[in-house]
Amino acid sequence: MNRNDRPIAIFDSGVGGLTVMRAVVEALPSENVIYLGDTARVPYGNRGADTVRRYALNATEMLRSMDIKALVVACNTATAYALPALLERHALPIVGVVEPVARRAAALTKTGVIAVMGTRGTVLSQSYPQTLCAINAALTVHQVACPLLVPLAEEGWTSGSVAETIIESYLVGLQTHDVDTLILGCTHYPLLGEAIARVVARRIAGAVTLLDSAATTAQSLKETLQAQGLLRAEGSCGQRRFLLTDIPDGFVSTASRFFGGEILSCEHVDIVDMSAMTSRTVGT
Amino acid sequence: MNRNDRPIAIFDSGVGGLTVMRAVVEALPSENVIYLGDTARVPYGNRGADTVRRYALNATEMLRSMDIKALVVACNTATAYALPALLERHALPIVGVVEPVARRAAALTKTGVIAVMGTRGTVLSQSYPQTLCAINAALTVHQVACPLLVPLAEEGWTSGSVAETIIESYLVGLQTHDVDTLILGCTHYPLLGEAIARVVARRIAGAVTLLDSAATTAQSLKETLQAQGLLRAEGSCGQRRFLLTDIPDGFVSTASRFFGGEILSCEHVDIVDMSAMTSRTVGT
Repeated sequence: MNRNDRPIAIFDSGVGGLTVMRAVVEALPSENVIYLGDTARVPYGNRGADTVRRYALNATEMLRSMDIKALVVACNTATAYALPALLERHALPIVGVVEPVARRAAALTKTGVIAVMGTRGTVLSQSYPQTLCAINAALTVHQVACPLLVPLAEEGWTSGSVAETIIESYLVGLQTHDVDTLILGCTHYPLLGEAIARVVARRIAGAVTLLDSAATTAQSLKETLQAQGLLRAEGSCGQRRFLLTDIPDGFVSTASRFFGGEILSCEHVDIVDMSAMTSRTVGT
Repeated sequence: MNRNDRPIAIFDSGVGGLTVMRAVVEALPSENVIYLGDTARVPYGNRGADTVRRYALNATEMLRSMDIKALVVACNTATAYALPALLERHALPIVGVVEPVARRAAALTKTGVIAVMGTRGTVLSQSYPQTLCAINAALTVHQVACPLLVPLAEEGWTSGSVAETIIESYLVGLQTHDVDTLILGCTHYPLLGEAIARVVARRIAGAVTLLDSAATTAQSLKETLQAQGLLRAEGSCGQRRFLLTDIPDGFVSTASRFFGGEILSCEHVDIVDMSAMTSRTVGT
């Protein structure tokens, strides 16, 4: 196989990363792409850093055995907790979802005040404030953890009074003064984009731009592959595979909703978690 | 060690089973008890049957290595999908959470119409209708899957308008005619008991008894140990250990809320999932 025909892998905890996959296949239609969703262990957002890091390392080991040419970590929590460990262990182009959208937000904001909605893990990691401040130390960043939005999006409760009431209750705690840019810091949130926009319009004075990671991450991947001479020749249509660690009844229709197109078949895979049984006491 | 001093193990996907643990330590204060919550892979309720079965088998293997004398599967989804496989492979008293509360519901109902709220997995398994109809074929059973209630309970959103709006939207789909007994078929739901009771009072005409699995399961465990001569001598206070596969920040306070008492320390453990990497295509 031509080395540029090797597939790009996109890894996520579940189906949220399919919003990134969609942008990747739009930006790079010739590329072969393998999606791996760790649906047997989703969600990652409320888990501890060590656990998320281990899961991401397990998944990457598995994907490396499939001779991939690049990896997209299409999960904010996994990017926040595991990207440095992945980069350290794997000599491979690896693109996370935090930095590309952070660069875009930093370029767009006029007031210099950016808000970030994310999972508890993403917020605790301080990944967005650190990345944004490394780009421009004068930026002000407000974060809000929104742990119920992943189950809401996965259940398809993406509009209506329940979704808006929950979003509203999260945004109540956000310092909204002067915010003009809001990062949807979780790949599930684009499905709730309209409901979030409605609540933001009610809660925050002035125009606010909502940004998600999908398009900027796809663009960053394209530039990375280009810079390393790894783009596949244009013309042919790339193959897409969808690997999942759990496929419950009715799952394919949920996945198709996130992908924004029909997914004809998913493959079941197990990710081997070789951590030996260990035990340590954690005090309170 | 005296064989009756060996610990009882209580296994759950996460913290919901602590509602059962609480009833067990109340009913059997002298017993040594080990709680194992698979918090690194919670929730089980939306996962497929094969995955839940594998997780329950993994966990039981680990607990057997700790020389336990009995096992309580304190998770409705795991009971529904894995109890037969566990009983087949392990020569050990094993008590699930479905049958004890089903017997109690069958004994209490006057109208013969019982409703069950549960996770998607528990509902799809048909575990409650099958168990109830085996007890009394004349019973009518209505089920309703409530997938968002586990994240709501774990997040502590157990009262107020969001909780009641979500519960109401689930109960709208329930055939409530003549229902006089409602089983909370998930060990997380007792935390939402008051909100569920308020919605039930609005939605269902006549008196409805809410039943959860905790007390009946503890009683069933006690009878099982008694019948097999495995009760520990009374008088001394049993030791309690809390093993968890993931302990994110702030977790111990959540766990204490479910247990209904202070948990001073949790131990981190890994459950080894030795399933080799396999792959099979699943059509749509």
